[in-house]
Amino acid sequence: MSHILILPGDGIGPEIVQEAVRVLRAAEQRFGLDISLDEAPVGGAAYDLHGDPLPESTLNKARAADAILFGSIGGPKWDTIERDKRPERGLLRLRSSLGLFANLRPAILFPQLADASSLKAEVVSGLDILIVRELTGGIYFGQPRGIREENGERVGFNTDVYSESEMRRIAKVAFELAGQRNNKVCSVDKANVLEVTELWKEVVTDAAKDYPNIELSHMYVDNAAMQLVRAPKQFDVIVTGNLFGDILSDEAAMLTGSIGMLPSASLDENRKGLYEPCHGSAPDIAGQGIANPLATIMSLAMLMRYSLERGDVADAIQAAVEQVLDQGLRTADIYTEGTRKVSTEEMGAAVAEAL
Amino acid sequence: MSHILILPGDGIGPEIVQEAVRVLRAAEQRFGLDISLDEAPVGGAAYDLHGDPLPESTLNKARAADAILFGSIGGPKWDTIERDKRPERGLLRLRSSLGLFANLRPAILFPQLADASSLKAEVVSGLDILIVRELTGGIYFGQPRGIREENGERVGFNTDVYSESEMRRIAKVAFELAGQRNNKVCSVDKANVLEVTELWKEVVTDAAKDYPNIELSHMYVDNAAMQLVRAPKQFDVIVTGNLFGDILSDEAAMLTGSIGMLPSASLDENRKGLYEPCHGSAPDIAGQGIANPLATIMSLAMLMRYSLERGDVADAIQAAVEQVLDQGLRTADIYTEGTRKVSTEEMGAAVAEAL
Ligand SMILES: CC(C)[C@H](C(=O)O)[C@@H](O)C(=O)O
Ligand SMILES: CC(C)[C@H](C(=O)O)[C@@H](O)C(=O)O
Repeated sequence: MSHILILPGDGIGPEIVQEAVRVLRAAEQRFGLDISLDEAPVGGAAYDLHGDPLPESTLNKARAADAILFGSIGGPKWDTIERDKRPERGLLRLRSSLGLFANLRPAILFPQLADASSLKAEVVSGLDILIVRELTGGIYFGQPRGIREENGERVGFNTDVYSESEMRRIAKVAFELAGQRNNKVCSVDKANVLEVTELWKEVVTDAAKDYPNIELSHMYVDNAAMQLVRAPKQFDVIVTGNLFGDILSDEAAMLTGSIGMLPSASLDENRKGLYEPCHGSAPDIAGQGIANPLATIMSLAMLMRYSLERGDVADAIQAAVEQVLDQGLRTADIYTEGTRKVSTEEMGAAVAEAL
Repeated sequence: MSHILILPGDGIGPEIVQEAVRVLRAAEQRFGLDISLDEAPVGGAAYDLHGDPLPESTLNKARAADAILFGSIGGPKWDTIERDKRPERGLLRLRSSLGLFANLRPAILFPQLADASSLKAEVVSGLDILIVRELTGGIYFGQPRGIREENGERVGFNTDVYSESEMRRIAKVAFELAGQRNNKVCSVDKANVLEVTELWKEVVTDAAKDYPNIELSHMYVDNAAMQLVRAPKQFDVIVTGNLFGDILSDEAAMLTGSIGMLPSASLDENRKGLYEPCHGSAPDIAGQGIANPLATIMSLAMLMRYSLERGDVADAIQAAVEQVLDQGLRTADIYTEGTRKVSTEEMGAAVAEAL
């Protein structure tokens, strides 16, 4: 029996997660899976209930689970509360507490949605990049950090820090994944300015020796931000630190024009993982039943593939999503003339049906 | 008499700077300017001559000058030398020693080159963004930094640090410049994770009180990287720290498709400045006479505008550049069928002639 914890979160989180659960139920039936589901509050919702965006009870359930399906968190309601209680902090603590150091963010262009991209068709058609972002280190978690007084004024400071072993383990994940794809890894750094990334470049280069079939290249982060716009198809797997990964994965996601379609996985050493859509909690459309559940449904597919080692189920979910797209079903965010606009629930039901 | 120091640097630097000087000579004649020119080595060229990418003699000349026209630096030849001697370090020390804290990077789409963009025409036509990047602080210069031993392994670390006064003075530059444009400033931070940028957001918000006509907005850096791809025309002036500015300005530059066309200015408190093209030293095409000198020529225009307070001369240079583009002259990097391919020198001569 596999234990999956559902963390709906805030904004559109509950609606989209509900549709992913619908698809999960359909997958259970079709494949005879043995799954137990539990649910817990996280983010602003948890703060409202327990005064904490990651209550102890939620963290305990997360520790016990084999995999976590996460909706989305945050909203203007919690933007002004004490820093440590904000929804984002709950997510950061969850990533860190569970050791979810490997963040996998695919940027894939669905041929059915090619028009949605702001880039020319020939630049992005067939785009399929995987960004591997280190998720539990770097400047996100580095100490010392804070705001201090100095010479009569305030000074803000943060520390970007990575150890060799942290660098090596994320590099390995990138090399392993590239081996299942097109055997190319581009490591992104700012080694010409930052010592921490100078070491990064050295360690990644050294780690590559165990992967003679992988072609490793290095790129400065400013150049990578340019190359993603100029010629994104030059990339297969990109591996980088927490902050650069945050920036570049969002940039890469937007190349597809449909961020509502992009899933992500955050894995620990044992492939236990947290799965969440790349998009945010979209408080402006929450509760209206118009959000796109497909990124969450495809996050479920990643969950099947990586944590439950059921690539067959993942493939079937992915195929079901493609099928409803081929049928012309679209939520509002990906709607174009000539297609059929459907609600969050209709979309979820259609994928479950196709499965 | 105005003193301008020429720092040709490496790669294509000398070729492109030579054409900018040709245009400067033409401007001198037409406008009766009184200018003294001097030249000094910098970057790899200076390392080869003096063992230092920023020799004392070059720095002294830079201090004495009213403005500096800079080519480009770096190349594979110097990639493996001792870290502190690399060409980039010379440039960083120059920025820091002269207090050039305000880096202005326009991203403008030339209608004549609209096809060069990898983005759809409607997304970028008429694009005109100004990125104001803080250039002498942040993680580029923060202490402590380095690589240390810890628990039997190496750990790399850097410090991102900004004082209130540093934040306030760059914010002011952005507000002033926005006042001469479309009165909009978007401040980019990662205030939901990094304390240093939380303070940034607060200080920029406070500084805005002196500029009631400017509309200030805030955006997280990951979202900014996305929005630049999705809908870049929503921006007027973007203000941000050193590292985010490095990344976002290169991304924005690439939206235009012709990085060979983009100039930049780095100003101190008194509008003394260093002017350089946004593109790099392109060692692969150096010495072939095919590099595009227009970014350097437009950097000269910025020099006229900001350091010499000769907006009229700047406008004339800019108009001359537009004129040769209208005539269909193109260097190899911006060549398309139906236009006339010219050399670096022919392009420089044509602009000088048009002036
Ligand atoms: C919400 C925020 C803390 C988070 C991050 O920066 O990691 C988000 O942008 C993401 O990429 O998952
Ligand atoms: C060469 C390098 C140190 C420099 C920087 O990072 O500032 C360059 O990328 C730039 O943007 O001018």
